[in-house]
Amino acid sequence: MSLTVVGSIAFDAVKTPFGERERMLGGSAVHFSLAASFFTDVRVVGPVGDDFGEAEYAALTDRGVNTEDIEHVAGGRTFFWKGEYEWNLNVRHTLDTQLNVFGEFEPKLSPASAGADALFLANIQPDLQRQVREQCADAQLVGLDSMNLWIETARDALVRTIGTVDMVFMNDEEVRQLTEQPTLLRAARDLMDMGPSTVVVKQGEYGAALFTGDGFFSLPAYPLETVIDPTGAGDAFAGGFLGYLAAEGLTDAATVRRAMTYGSVVASFNVEQFGTERMQTLTREEIDSRYDELRRMTAIDEIPAV
Amino acid sequence: MSLTVVGSIAFDAVKTPFGERERMLGGSAVHFSLAASFFTDVRVVGPVGDDFGEAEYAALTDRGVNTEDIEHVAGGRTFFWKGEYEWNLNVRHTLDTQLNVFGEFEPKLSPASAGADALFLANIQPDLQRQVREQCADAQLVGLDSMNLWIETARDALVRTIGTVDMVFMNDEEVRQLTEQPTLLRAARDLMDMGPSTVVVKQGEYGAALFTGDGFFSLPAYPLETVIDPTGAGDAFAGGFLGYLAAEGLTDAATVRRAMTYGSVVASFNVEQFGTERMQTLTREEIDSRYDELRRMTAIDEIPAV
Repeated sequence: MSLTVVGSIAFDAVKTPFGERERMLGGSAVHFSLAASFFTDVRVVGPVGDDFGEAEYAALTDRGVNTEDIEHVAGGRTFFWKGEYEWNLNVRHTLDTQLNVFGEFEPKLSPASAGADALFLANIQPDLQRQVREQCADAQLVGLDSMNLWIETARDALVRTIGTVDMVFMNDEEVRQLTEQPTLLRAARDLMDMGPSTVVVKQGEYGAALFTGDGFFSLPAYPLETVIDPTGAGDAFAGGFLGYLAAEGLTDAATVRRAMTYGSVVASFNVEQFGTERMQTLTREEIDSRYDELRRMTAIDEIPAV
Repeated sequence: MSLTVVGSIAFDAVKTPFGERERMLGGSAVHFSLAASFFTDVRVVGPVGDDFGEAEYAALTDRGVNTEDIEHVAGGRTFFWKGEYEWNLNVRHTLDTQLNVFGEFEPKLSPASAGADALFLANIQPDLQRQVREQCADAQLVGLDSMNLWIETARDALVRTIGTVDMVFMNDEEVRQLTEQPTLLRAARDLMDMGPSTVVVKQGEYGAALFTGDGFFSLPAYPLETVIDPTGAGDAFAGGFLGYLAAEGLTDAATVRRAMTYGSVVASFNVEQFGTERMQTLTREEIDSRYDELRRMTAIDEIPAV
């Protein structure tokens, strides 16, 4: 399956207890597409300004990501986000957000991007997500991410957009906030009642939970000794997940469990260095090796090491 | 293996968004011993007052728990705790704590209790825990729980006591607070450096993670539609865990993974009703059935339903 992602392309300034970067490549569509690139061909759609140069394009094209639908807005500047993480990396503070060209973004997909079999609507305004969804009429597998901002300011639009997708990827607080349900099981059921067949609840360092009809699967995060920069972990997770599904061209229960595991593995690498740095050196062999480790780590009936 | 638990025996007043109880049986040693009773013989040690009556003894003895070492302090009153949970059940507020007879507790174990092969030091003052540990010189398997209060007020005593046990059961915040490490992996290594061979990190609704030397295992919580009262879940988890290990008389990696799964299953039942109510009606068949469900839910390579 071909895979298209629409979302933010950004420069990030990030400070964590383990170091900082004043300006590096970031954005939801970037983290997603790099992660997906280990499994399938992916096209990335989003706006950039004059400051988005050859090095940034190369970071994507070196991983085989198709950048033809990156919209260069002449005279504009690329979306900029600045944040800082506390010692407890689950707590982060946004210090600056400059929407720049992203503020006027109206997604226009080329026929090649619009013709994708699989589509990921990264976290952007829900009405824009629905516009993209409508442009990709033939997509058989559509995933969506969102955030608390849209739950609070555009709830109706978000619910309407959720009704047009197959899979929701949201974190546990967002899922509870949107559905006003106390347990994830009830929250996931409410979300599925809105339309999607699958709800993937991201739980950060705890892993992720998958709800499908009456089905449930849960996976812990790969245990890391060092987490340098959690930025983009959720998008890398979704990228590995949908990238694997698109590559397999299947969405049966067993394939989806493997997809979730691949997503979790790629996300675990993503946070081991700043921004997209780890993705630039990562190999499929490293991914497969950690996949096997995670498989053994989560088996109640222990699987011996190969 | 015989199993002894030393900890609090209490009356609890609990209010949650789903109801309340003004006075019910509770306490760490009670939740632990009821959970363990589904797997092995267990002796409970702790103080009670004149208000601890036949109904309370019966709740324990009906499940086969040996109550001979419950110390009745004439003229005293039983430990009382009152708490309230928010709509987000992860947030709880203590409204009242009356130590009563627990304030003067000096554990004196009978030869039968002190001769146990397995011992659980539920959350009490660390010096008292170590006194109990020293009375049980022959115990081959000793587990310990603690809390933020002792980390803040008796840190040295706690570290010294941790050095005398095999397994630590603490939640993730406590583990981070005690070790001042940002990732669980590093925190667990620091704890193992203090003495224990095994660290079990309780993660509430997210499940639990197990660290042993270079080994790692993680298990999500069984997904529940309704959580009525989370009180005692951690003690029920430890009770199922150590109860199963004591029954098997083994601590190899495969047995420990199964023990953690049984602990998680018993804890999931514990929170479905107030206090110990669910434990009074629970059967081993229900436990085994949910165990199989959880096993299928967590297998990356899907296990078909029997």
